[in-house]
Amino acid sequence: MQIGMIGLGRMGGNIVRRLMQHGHTTVVYDKDPKAVAEIASDGAADSDSLEQFVKKLGPPRAAWVMLPAGKITEATIEALSKLMERGDVIIDGGNTFWQDDVRRGKKLKERGIHYIDVGTSGGVWGIERGYCMMIGGDKPVVERLDPIFKTLAPGLGDIPRTEEREGRDPRVEQGYLHAGPVGSGHFVKMVHNGIEYGLMQAYAEGFDILKNAGIAALPAEHRFDLDIADIAEVWRRGSVIPSWLLDLTASALARNDTLDNYSGFVEDSGEGRWTVNAAIDEAVPAEVLTAALFARFRSRKEHTFAEKILSAMRDGFGGHKEPQQHPDPARQSTPGIVKPKAGRS
Amino acid sequence: MQIGMIGLGRMGGNIVRRLMQHGHTTVVYDKDPKAVAEIASDGAADSDSLEQFVKKLGPPRAAWVMLPAGKITEATIEALSKLMERGDVIIDGGNTFWQDDVRRGKKLKERGIHYIDVGTSGGVWGIERGYCMMIGGDKPVVERLDPIFKTLAPGLGDIPRTEEREGRDPRVEQGYLHAGPVGSGHFVKMVHNGIEYGLMQAYAEGFDILKNAGIAALPAEHRFDLDIADIAEVWRRGSVIPSWLLDLTASALARNDTLDNYSGFVEDSGEGRWTVNAAIDEAVPAEVLTAALFARFRSRKEHTFAEKILSAMRDGFGGHKEPQQHPDPARQSTPGIVKPKAGRS
Amino acid sequence: MQIGMIGLGRMGGNIVRRLMQHGHTTVVYDKDPKAVAEIASDGAADSDSLEQFVKKLGPPRAAWVMLPAGKITEATIEALSKLMERGDVIIDGGNTFWQDDVRRGKKLKERGIHYIDVGTSGGVWGIERGYCMMIGGDKPVVERLDPIFKTLAPGLGDIPRTEEREGRDPRVEQGYLHAGPVGSGHFVKMVHNGIEYGLMQAYAEGFDILKNAGIAALPAEHRFDLDIADIAEVWRRGSVIPSWLLDLTASALARNDTLDNYSGFVEDSGEGRWTVNAAIDEAVPAEVLTAALFARFRSRKEHTFAEKILSAMRDGFGGHKEPQQHPDPARQSTPGIVKPKAGRS
Amino acid sequence: MQIGMIGLGRMGGNIVRRLMQHGHTTVVYDKDPKAVAEIASDGAADSDSLEQFVKKLGPPRAAWVMLPAGKITEATIEALSKLMERGDVIIDGGNTFWQDDVRRGKKLKERGIHYIDVGTSGGVWGIERGYCMMIGGDKPVVERLDPIFKTLAPGLGDIPRTEEREGRDPRVEQGYLHAGPVGSGHFVKMVHNGIEYGLMQAYAEGFDILKNAGIAALPAEHRFDLDIADIAEVWRRGSVIPSWLLDLTASALARNDTLDNYSGFVEDSGEGRWTVNAAIDEAVPAEVLTAALFARFRSRKEHTFAEKILSAMRDGFGGHKEPQQHPDPARQSTPGIVKPKAGRS
Repeated sequence: MQIGMIGLGRMGGNIVRRLMQHGHTTVVYDKDPKAVAEIASDGAADSDSLEQFVKKLGPPRAAWVMLPAGKITEATIEALSKLMERGDVIIDGGNTFWQDDVRRGKKLKERGIHYIDVGTSGGVWGIERGYCMMIGGDKPVVERLDPIFKTLAPGLGDIPRTEEREGRDPRVEQGYLHAGPVGSGHFVKMVHNGIEYGLMQAYAEGFDILKNAGIAALPAEHRFDLDIADIAEVWRRGSVIPSWLLDLTASALARNDTLDNYSGFVEDSGEGRWTVNAAIDEAVPAEVLTAALFARFRSRKEHTFAEKILSAMRDGFGGHKEPQQHPDPARQSTPGIVKPKAGRS
Repeated sequence: MQIGMIGLGRMGGNIVRRLMQHGHTTVVYDKDPKAVAEIASDGAADSDSLEQFVKKLGPPRAAWVMLPAGKITEATIEALSKLMERGDVIIDGGNTFWQDDVRRGKKLKERGIHYIDVGTSGGVWGIERGYCMMIGGDKPVVERLDPIFKTLAPGLGDIPRTEEREGRDPRVEQGYLHAGPVGSGHFVKMVHNGIEYGLMQAYAEGFDILKNAGIAALPAEHRFDLDIADIAEVWRRGSVIPSWLLDLTASALARNDTLDNYSGFVEDSGEGRWTVNAAIDEAVPAEVLTAALFARFRSRKEHTFAEKILSAMRDGFGGHKEPQQHPDPARQSTPGIVKPKAGRS
Repeated sequence: MQIGMIGLGRMGGNIVRRLMQHGHTTVVYDKDPKAVAEIASDGAADSDSLEQFVKKLGPPRAAWVMLPAGKITEATIEALSKLMERGDVIIDGGNTFWQDDVRRGKKLKERGIHYIDVGTSGGVWGIERGYCMMIGGDKPVVERLDPIFKTLAPGLGDIPRTEEREGRDPRVEQGYLHAGPVGSGHFVKMVHNGIEYGLMQAYAEGFDILKNAGIAALPAEHRFDLDIADIAEVWRRGSVIPSWLLDLTASALARNDTLDNYSGFVEDSGEGRWTVNAAIDEAVPAEVLTAALFARFRSRKEHTFAEKILSAMRDGFGGHKEPQQHPDPARQSTPGIVKPKAGRS
Repeated sequence: MQIGMIGLGRMGGNIVRRLMQHGHTTVVYDKDPKAVAEIASDGAADSDSLEQFVKKLGPPRAAWVMLPAGKITEATIEALSKLMERGDVIIDGGNTFWQDDVRRGKKLKERGIHYIDVGTSGGVWGIERGYCMMIGGDKPVVERLDPIFKTLAPGLGDIPRTEEREGRDPRVEQGYLHAGPVGSGHFVKMVHNGIEYGLMQAYAEGFDILKNAGIAALPAEHRFDLDIADIAEVWRRGSVIPSWLLDLTASALARNDTLDNYSGFVEDSGEGRWTVNAAIDEAVPAEVLTAALFARFRSRKEHTFAEKILSAMRDGFGGHKEPQQHPDPARQSTPGIVKPKAGRS
C-alpha cells in the first residue's frame, strides 16, 4: 500500500527503505532536501513541502511522522492535519509522551482525522531484522495499516515460540502489538525503555563490583584481579543473564576493557522519567527503575549540591574537614575495618 | 577422565550424566542410597561411604562436591579431605560464599590438597545445553581438569561470536572461565546472581506499571487495560530487552496472565546479599542490586516494623489514623490530584 | 486587620482563633453551618453563603481559603473570585499543587485579583505555638498581609538564633518566609514534606533493624533483645539525631513498644509525589526521598504484581516453588550462611 | 571514683575533663606525651607507659580506651589486658565494630577481665552538655561504673520529658542506656549513625531540589530562584522537620549559601556500612539508609565504572555518543518535554 513518511533520519529513512523493498510505495518529505533526494533515488516519491507531500498521497491518506518528540512533532502534525481530510490517518512513530498522544488524538478525532501512535524499537538494525512495534489507536485504522506493520515487523524469525499462546493475537508473534487506544502504544514503549534503564544499570553495577574487586583497600587475601571482558563473554554462554545488552557489553569490553574511551556521562531521554512518573501516578513502587534514572542524573554532575550540604553538616557537627582535592583513588574505598572518627558521628 | 561426585541432586546427577555421555568415568556418593543406585544404573561406579568413594578413585583424585552451601558442604569437604592424599583435588561446585572458599583453600593447601571453586549455572537444562562455569583455583589444577570442564560447558553453539576477541582465552567462548585464584569462581558467580536479581526486578517493576495502568484512581482518559502476556511476547521480538528471563516471563504469562497461581513471596539465596556486601566493601554504589534484594525481603513480610513506626509518627503529629483493614484496592493508589490532608504534614 | 476564612476545619478554625486572640477581626464561612456557628460564638462574623461572606469583608478584601487541595479548593476559589473586585486578594493556605497555583494566579491576575499561596505547617499545635508559613506572591500583597502572617507565626520563642544572619530578612526568624512569586510558597512546603518523608523513613528503618536484632535466624552470639522504647528516649538526649519526629516516636513507643495498635498501612499525600516529580524535572537524584515514598506505596499492598513476576521467573528457571502460606516469621530472614539452592540461580 | 583514660584526643580529653570537674580522679595515658602533660596540668595523674598507667590505678581497675576503632584499639586492649588482673574492667568508648566487641569480650572474660562497650555521642560539645551513651556489658559491671556514666551523661536538662515512661529505667532520661550484653552498646550506636546518614541525605536532597528550582531547562513559568538559607531558617521555626542537623545546615547556609567552600566529597565511617550489613543479615529492607551510604560512595568518584558501561551499551545499541566534555550545566537537566532520540532506545 501507499504511505507517506515525514522525517528521513536514520529511523525514518530505513523504515521507508524496508517498506519499498517489500513492494510498498512511499511519498517522502524532510526539511533537508538532500535527505529527500537520497531516498527518492531509491524509488520514493519526493516532495518539497507538506502541501506537495499531501497531494501526492491518495485518499484515505496515511502519513507516518518520524521526528524528534516534542515541539517539532507537535508543530508538524498540527500543520499536516490542516492539509488532510476526514478519514486520513497520521501515525506518530517517534518517542512522543503518551499523554500528548491522548490530547492530540482527541483533538484530531474532532476533525475526523485518525491518529495512531507507534512505539518503534529496532534502531539501526531495524532495516534488516525488522522493528518491534507497540501500536495505539482505533481498531479499524490499525487494521487498515496492517500491511505496513506486517512488513516492518521482524516476523517469527528463529526466535523460539512461546508455548500455550494458541488462540492469542497472531500479530504479536510477528513482532507488533495493537496495545489499545491512542496513547497506549507509546505508553508500552515507554515502559520498555524504563525497563531497559533498569537492566542496563543492573549489569553496570555488577561489572563495577567486578572491576573494583582488586582495590588496595581490601584485605590482600580477598582481592581479585578479574578479566571483565572474559566474564562478560562467558555469561553469554549458558548463564541465566544473557541478553542483547550483555552482547553489547561483551563487545565493547572486547575492544577496550578499560572503557577509557568513554567518560561516563549518561544522557536520559524522556521515557525513563515518564516511566517513574507513571509508577508514582499508579502508586507502584519502582525502586530499580528510579535508581537507574537517578544514576544517570548523577553521572552528569561533578558534584551535587546535596553532597555539599552533607559536607557542611559534617563540618558542623564533628569538625570533619573534607579533602580539598579529588582524593587518592586508592583511598576512595575503605572497606573492612574502616578508620572511623572518634568524633561525634 | 575419572571424576567423583558427592551429592546427586538435580545438579549433581545431571552433571554426572553429561560427563558419562561424553565418555568420562565417574564414582558417585550420596547419603541417599536410592540416588546412588539410580545413577549407578546409568553406569556410574557407586559407593556407600566416603571411604569407599575415595578408594574407588584413582590418584591423583578429583572429587566434585555438589551440595547445599554452608554447613553440609563444609563438613563434607572436611571429612573428605581427611581421606585424600597430597595432590588430590576437591572441587566445590555449589553456591559457596567465596570467602569460605578462600579460607578453606588455604587450609587444604597446607595439607597438599588442591581446592577448586566452580560457580555453575545451567539448572535443569544444563544436562542438554551445558553449564556456564566460573572457576577459581591454581592454574595447573584447573588445566588438569580441563577435560571435565570442556565436556560440561555448552560450547560455541549457535550463539554469535563477539568480534575482536582474537588472542583471548578460547575457553571463554566455550562457556567456561578460569577467573583467578581460589574464591574467584564463586565471586564471579555471586555477582552473576546479583545482576540476575537486578534484571528480574527491572522486568517485574515494568510489568507492575503495565498491570496497574488501568486503575480507577487514574483519570479516565489516562487509563489503559493492557494485555501483559502479549506485551511480554512482543518484546521478545526485535526490542532492546529480550533475554531468557523475559522468555520465562512471557511463558508464565501465556499460561496465566493474572499470575494468581503465585502468592508473591520471593526467597533470596545468599548471593544477592553477598553481592551487596561486596559492593559495600569496595565502596561501589549498587542501588539497583540492593533495591532488588530489599524488594525480596519486603515480599516476605505482612508489614515491616518500619511501617508501624511511620504510622505511629503520623498519628503523633497530625492525628492521621490509618485504615484498620486492608484498604480498598481501588483506593490504593491516589494519582493525579491527591486529596491531601489539610493537617500538619 | 480584617480577614475572611473559608473552611473551618481543624486548621482553618484554629487560624481564625489565633488571629482573633491577637485582635484581628474575621469573617468566616463553611458549608457546615455548625462549624460557622461554633466559631461565631468565639467572636467571628458569620456568613451563610459566599455572597454574604464577601459582602461582610471591606475592600480591599482578603480571603483565606483553607480547604482540601484539589477540586474543592479549585471550585471555591473560582466561585469566590467572581464575587470579588480588583485589588482583592485570595490566599490559598492548603496543600495545593504548586503548578495549580501558578496557573490560577495567572488567571486571577488578568482579572485584577491577587493570589497568594501559603504553605502552612503547624497542625493541631499551631493555635498555641504558631504556624510556620512559606508564602508565594507579589511583594506588595504579601506586605499588605504582614499583620496576619506576623500574628500566625510562632515568633522567636526559645529557639536559639542562627549566627551570621545579620542583614537578612527578619521575618524568617519569626517563622514566616516570602519565598518568591505565586507557587513558590507551596513549592517550598512541598519539599518540606518530601524531606519529612525521608526523615521518617530513616528513623523507621533504623528502629526496624533494632527490632529484628534478636531474630532466631541470626547466630546466637550476635542476637540482641533491645528495648527500643528506651533507645528512642536516650537518643533524644545528647545524640546527633534528636528531632520532633524522634520525640513522637519515643512517645508512641513509651505507650506501646510493640506498636501493635498500628497495622502499618501508610498513606501518602500529594507532596511526597510532587517532590519526586520536581526532582525528576530538575534531573536531581533524590534516592532517599523516592525510596521513602515507595515504601509507603508498598505498605498498602498485600503483594505487588512485581513480586508475582519474580516468583514466576524463579519457578521458570529453577523450579523454585514459593511457600504457599505466609512463611514462618522465624525463617523470614536467613542471615549469615544462608541455605542457597544448588539450582541454577 | 577513679578511672583511667587511654587516648587523649578531642573526645578522650574532654571526657577526662568533665569527669574531673565533677570530682572523679583520673589516670591518663597517650602515646603523645604533650597530650598527657596538658591534661595532667588540669589535675589528671599522668603516665608514660601502659605499665605505669595500670600501676597508678587501684583495683578493681577501670580503664576507658578512646582510640580510633580497628587495629590501634585492638592492639591497645590486647596489651592493656595483659597488664590487668581478674575483676578489672576495660571500656571501649570508640566506634568499634560490635562483632569485634563480642569476640573481644568473650576472650577477655575467659581471663576474668570485664569488657564494656560504650557508643558515645556528643562530639566537641560533650564536655559542656554531656554525652549520650549506649552501653553494652554485664549488669554488675555497668552498675559499678554508674558514677562515671551519670557524670558524663547530659542529664534531664530542659528537654521535655516523654509521657508514660513511669516505671522505666530512670537512667535513660539522664541520657545513658544499658542496652544489653557486650556489643549491644556499639550496635545501638551503629544504628544511630546509620539513621544519621539517612536524615542527612533527606535534608541534602531536599535542598538540592530547592537549589535547582530555577534552572534554565525548566519552563520559565515554573522556575523559582529561592533563598535556601532563609528556607533552612524558617523550617527551624514551627515546621515538622526541625532538628540539630537542620540547625547546622541553617548555620552553614547563613555563612555561605553557595557552599562553594565545600567540594562535596563525603567520607563515610564504618557505622553506615555496618548498619546496612546488619539490615541484610536480618532481612530488613533499608532502602533509605543504604541509598544514603551509596550517595557518599558516589560523591568520592569522578565517574563510576558502571557509568562507562552504560555509555558503552548506549553507543552499542543506538550509536549514542556521549559528550566529550563536562556538559553545559544549563543542559544538565532536560525537564518537561525532553528531546528524545529517534534511535532505538
